[in-house]
Amino acid sequence: MKKMSILRTWLLAGCLAFPLFAGNVIAQDEPAPEPAAAEEAPAEEEAGPVDDYLEMVDGAGAEYAPAFDFFAVSMLWTVIAAALVFIMHLGFATLEAGLTQSKNTVNILFKNVWIISVGLLTYAAIGFNTHYPGSWQIPGWLGIGTPIGDLNADGGDGWGYGGLGLAMTGFGDFIFQAMFAATAATIVSGAVAERIKLSSFMIFSTILVALGYTIAGSWHWGGGWLGSLPGDGFYDFAGSTVVHGFGGAAALACVMLLGPRKGKYVDGGIKPIVGHSKPLAAIGVFLLFFGWFGFNGGSVLSANPGPLGLVFTTTALAAAAGAVTSIFTSIIVLKKPDLSMALNGILAGLVSITAGADSVGVWASVLMGGVGGVIVVFSILFLDKIKIDDPVGAISVHGTCGIWGTVAVGIFGGANLFSQIVGVVAVYVFAFAFAFVLFLILKVTIGVRVSEEEEAEGLDVAEHGAPAYNIT
Amino acid sequence: MKKMSILRTWLLAGCLAFPLFAGNVIAQDEPAPEPAAAEEAPAEEEAGPVDDYLEMVDGAGAEYAPAFDFFAVSMLWTVIAAALVFIMHLGFATLEAGLTQSKNTVNILFKNVWIISVGLLTYAAIGFNTHYPGSWQIPGWLGIGTPIGDLNADGGDGWGYGGLGLAMTGFGDFIFQAMFAATAATIVSGAVAERIKLSSFMIFSTILVALGYTIAGSWHWGGGWLGSLPGDGFYDFAGSTVVHGFGGAAALACVMLLGPRKGKYVDGGIKPIVGHSKPLAAIGVFLLFFGWFGFNGGSVLSANPGPLGLVFTTTALAAAAGAVTSIFTSIIVLKKPDLSMALNGILAGLVSITAGADSVGVWASVLMGGVGGVIVVFSILFLDKIKIDDPVGAISVHGTCGIWGTVAVGIFGGANLFSQIVGVVAVYVFAFAFAFVLFLILKVTIGVRVSEEEEAEGLDVAEHGAPAYNIT
Amino acid sequence: MKKMSILRTWLLAGCLAFPLFAGNVIAQDEPAPEPAAAEEAPAEEEAGPVDDYLEMVDGAGAEYAPAFDFFAVSMLWTVIAAALVFIMHLGFATLEAGLTQSKNTVNILFKNVWIISVGLLTYAAIGFNTHYPGSWQIPGWLGIGTPIGDLNADGGDGWGYGGLGLAMTGFGDFIFQAMFAATAATIVSGAVAERIKLSSFMIFSTILVALGYTIAGSWHWGGGWLGSLPGDGFYDFAGSTVVHGFGGAAALACVMLLGPRKGKYVDGGIKPIVGHSKPLAAIGVFLLFFGWFGFNGGSVLSANPGPLGLVFTTTALAAAAGAVTSIFTSIIVLKKPDLSMALNGILAGLVSITAGADSVGVWASVLMGGVGGVIVVFSILFLDKIKIDDPVGAISVHGTCGIWGTVAVGIFGGANLFSQIVGVVAVYVFAFAFAFVLFLILKVTIGVRVSEEEEAEGLDVAEHGAPAYNIT
Repeated sequence: MKKMSILRTWLLAGCLAFPLFAGNVIAQDEPAPEPAAAEEAPAEEEAGPVDDYLEMVDGAGAEYAPAFDFFAVSMLWTVIAAALVFIMHLGFATLEAGLTQSKNTVNILFKNVWIISVGLLTYAAIGFNTHYPGSWQIPGWLGIGTPIGDLNADGGDGWGYGGLGLAMTGFGDFIFQAMFAATAATIVSGAVAERIKLSSFMIFSTILVALGYTIAGSWHWGGGWLGSLPGDGFYDFAGSTVVHGFGGAAALACVMLLGPRKGKYVDGGIKPIVGHSKPLAAIGVFLLFFGWFGFNGGSVLSANPGPLGLVFTTTALAAAAGAVTSIFTSIIVLKKPDLSMALNGILAGLVSITAGADSVGVWASVLMGGVGGVIVVFSILFLDKIKIDDPVGAISVHGTCGIWGTVAVGIFGGANLFSQIVGVVAVYVFAFAFAFVLFLILKVTIGVRVSEEEEAEGLDVAEHGAPAYNIT
Repeated sequence: MKKMSILRTWLLAGCLAFPLFAGNVIAQDEPAPEPAAAEEAPAEEEAGPVDDYLEMVDGAGAEYAPAFDFFAVSMLWTVIAAALVFIMHLGFATLEAGLTQSKNTVNILFKNVWIISVGLLTYAAIGFNTHYPGSWQIPGWLGIGTPIGDLNADGGDGWGYGGLGLAMTGFGDFIFQAMFAATAATIVSGAVAERIKLSSFMIFSTILVALGYTIAGSWHWGGGWLGSLPGDGFYDFAGSTVVHGFGGAAALACVMLLGPRKGKYVDGGIKPIVGHSKPLAAIGVFLLFFGWFGFNGGSVLSANPGPLGLVFTTTALAAAAGAVTSIFTSIIVLKKPDLSMALNGILAGLVSITAGADSVGVWASVLMGGVGGVIVVFSILFLDKIKIDDPVGAISVHGTCGIWGTVAVGIFGGANLFSQIVGVVAVYVFAFAFAFVLFLILKVTIGVRVSEEEEAEGLDVAEHGAPAYNIT
Repeated sequence: MKKMSILRTWLLAGCLAFPLFAGNVIAQDEPAPEPAAAEEAPAEEEAGPVDDYLEMVDGAGAEYAPAFDFFAVSMLWTVIAAALVFIMHLGFATLEAGLTQSKNTVNILFKNVWIISVGLLTYAAIGFNTHYPGSWQIPGWLGIGTPIGDLNADGGDGWGYGGLGLAMTGFGDFIFQAMFAATAATIVSGAVAERIKLSSFMIFSTILVALGYTIAGSWHWGGGWLGSLPGDGFYDFAGSTVVHGFGGAAALACVMLLGPRKGKYVDGGIKPIVGHSKPLAAIGVFLLFFGWFGFNGGSVLSANPGPLGLVFTTTALAAAAGAVTSIFTSIIVLKKPDLSMALNGILAGLVSITAGADSVGVWASVLMGGVGGVIVVFSILFLDKIKIDDPVGAISVHGTCGIWGTVAVGIFGGANLFSQIVGVVAVYVFAFAFAFVLFLILKVTIGVRVSEEEEAEGLDVAEHGAPAYNIT
């Protein structure tokens, strides 16, 4: 009985919370598609998907035929790229888990499940429409969107809301951007690992992804004020600053308020707290590299072969250069070929090329990634020296290299250097301030940190009642 | 000598077992393609792939040009989607391994290697052609197919057996469907884990995927009787019932015959047997989520931008909603934010949207997934209460949520509710009965369960002679 | 101060090492693209990607429209395939780590990070242009390329260097081939694991991928002498010999010079040194299977639906057959269903179909893969018997099955059997000799093997100063 009433409460809550679903139901005029077809050619009168498609193209006029085909392939790339960005979340989850202690693994995995889920939902509820007329906003500066509706219904031509002006349908645009939004919030997760209170993190990350990221994003994407800066405006191709820098700066604010893990900085020295599984960390970085092809490649926003090939190449070469320089830097500075540094070097290279992947040459991309691989090592060591305890190096990888990558487009990619710097400062300051205020409010109200006992015991048992491993 | 004779036996067996290979050899008229091309534009007289393509299009008539291009992009999506569905098998393998004990890990991985392999082979041998004229069959009800041949040769136009009536070639159709077939059987694997006899499982899963799944599938896909139900017939877009429900119902039959693991239900209480690696489980679920974009997205059966974007969006939002509601349900019911429940909540959301991903609105998809996330928690607890021991929750995720997802299309997606219920009942009863009879035969003949000693020792050493881990 | 001077050294080194970057900077004429678009259709005057595309197509003449669309979809497939081949490197990393001892895991992961990174960079620096006029070369036999420049700039038509003669741009061609190059070198990594000196391996693998692979590759791809052999020349579709055989033969040379691991062959017997994590090994093989769809499928070099579907199907069925036959072979020979053999059977099937994936029928592919699955078991046992210590079975999987797969195209795929054998012998002898000489030089100079103490302690601590695991 009790359970049934809980169920009833949920169903009721669902109906109240999602009053829009009824209006979005698509009339199901046509019967189920049939995945199977006869081995002989189907009868002429039966219309297949190609016939449907031809009819639509015919209706639009013959001269549009190649445009429609290009639209279809661009849209396909958009959704595949969205799936690739999605798998970056598994990369973040495993990387963070691998670089931290085994007693906090369940907690890290749980946080990553939370972020991708709540990020997708809030982006549908208020994020996506932030940039668009009709939402409450100070255009170009601030806005809170309305929930998305049927993005296929608007704009006509059967191609979703953008017609042929954008090489993807509204849903393609939505799902690709929604995956980006969740990325910004997940960067914080690693930096605050091993001592943050779960409930506070859940609230913080929800608000950060729902309001913080979308506001900063609207400054850049969707015709915000950063586009009006000198030159052709602030240039950040796929988000070195707007996604990675945003996450890194927010993470810095949280770590400053949260304080280091117990036992990290004792007697004036730095005591390393080693991660529990290098294979998990390596799986994470390779998956992030893999997914970055969607992150950067999808930001071409079409399947235009010229930029697509360039972006794949600069992305891969920058990652490779970041790995190689971080390896040699670690050999020189740390006197050993450090795997964690090599892995972070790959990510450093990737963040360093993200702002300019479409607008620099291949050897500039190697230089940008390579410098990123050096920077990340020194940044990690420097933050440790000033007692900013970031267990996975997220602030250095995303924050520090985000600055370098964005500025480098002003050096190698033809962007206006002044505008690049203004953009970086604006987004970083906003992200830091937004996260600082929000996290401070949580700190003085419900608290942001687990007790010393819980931290010593590990968050897995303390917060979730279950350890991550039970290998006998 | 002995080894050579074994080798000879194998080769002979191969020749006897595969008498068809000779007839399928494609004449190799053209020399090796050259991945490399000169930096200058190639000489005019050398025909490249684009020239070959243009010639084919010209032959078909100019008005077909856009159709051919759409066909090409749709076919590309089909094979990519097949690869994504393939990677779900790694997801199942790691999820099942993570949620069970480390002493049974090799066994679980082995079973998953077996299923995907034998599933692909039997689908080529008899599964694919089940639906097609020429096979032995009671049309729409029952059939056993003939082995596939050269699916590029039939139908003409150079596009495989379907001509332009289907937006993919015969091989595209085959490989996508073959990956689906193996999925149905792998669902059983998790439910029977930790105590099933390997040989029995190998026989059972082979027959289930080769005969059971294909028969049920032919009722729905390929013009079966479910399509003649009232309204526009039974509607199950990508297989909430026909794939996931089928697997869940079959799993239930097996678990009932197999009995619970030793020590699970003792003294009237339920003793949890905890899984050995949450990271493995999380990797599994994220990979399943990733692959589901191919499972549902590929079921659009073309690269039609409208439905493609909708399906990606509804799929992702339902999964996210399932995670969020299962998290809060676990907090309320279990008094802790349970990671396993959150992971199963993602899968519950995915199964719940699979039947209607193309025919409901975004907020309906959130509701459908969200309800699935609640249902799965109660279903897992309920099955445990009635002593149905399902170590990974497969029956609840795929079976219970498969019912909900299919019925929900009758509520939110315009399908005929009566037909939905009839379809669910028919497929579930058939899957349960098929699995029950088959497993019962195995039980009374060779036995389906390992000895108590083997179960205590673990199947890895008992069945495979090797443990999964040796971490020093 | 010291750190700053290191930084300065790096920056300087970067500028000296990459003098080309400046010339490759692409003028950034257009402002940032805008991922977001208004929900209403964009204003007519704003040119989107589709308009840009249409303008380009119009400029080329209406009759080229379908060709341009086909080019775009083929190029998309090329870069996606490159990403899939990339993820094979995670597959190799986890497979090798899983099949070796936990004390050498960091070392294995590190080597795999190194190879993919340095492989991409050297392929850009000298590898890619090896085949092309302008490089220093004995055409068709030997060459060292010049660094790549802006591959989008040459050839005109906005489609990169190949115009419409090749269904991809220059950057697409580059990134796909670069991923292949790194694959050849990574095969060696597993065979020499657990006792090779890191510095020697880093030098060896760099030279192997930069010079060795590219020379052998140029014999086959890019109009080399193997194409002039009788029949239509040596046929190796995606590289059973040129990639996998090359790696396997090079690995054999290294293992012969390196010697077996301590304790492997003692008192005339073989003492198995068991791997430390079967789940890691399984993750590796499934990811390799997944990536192989890009390896073989991308080698179609276009999105031509006919061959694409065939290649996906033959690839999957051969892998499945390899798994099944290796399972039964292990049951017969080893008296147990061995998971490692099943996993290697999948890879054996994949290598066995790689040379002929586009030119044999489905049942021939089953036979080829199935024979590969038998061969690999006997090859592994045989190499162990003659004291060739290959911890992961790489020589058998890639070397032995590479021979079978290449020769089998002469039996089932219409290729000239004599040419196949000549090609195999040439590439294997070259790879073996190249690796042998190079590794021998390293052996007599800096040494190739760690000390006995380091081997006993494990390379993770000895070489990298950090263990892979710290699970509490």
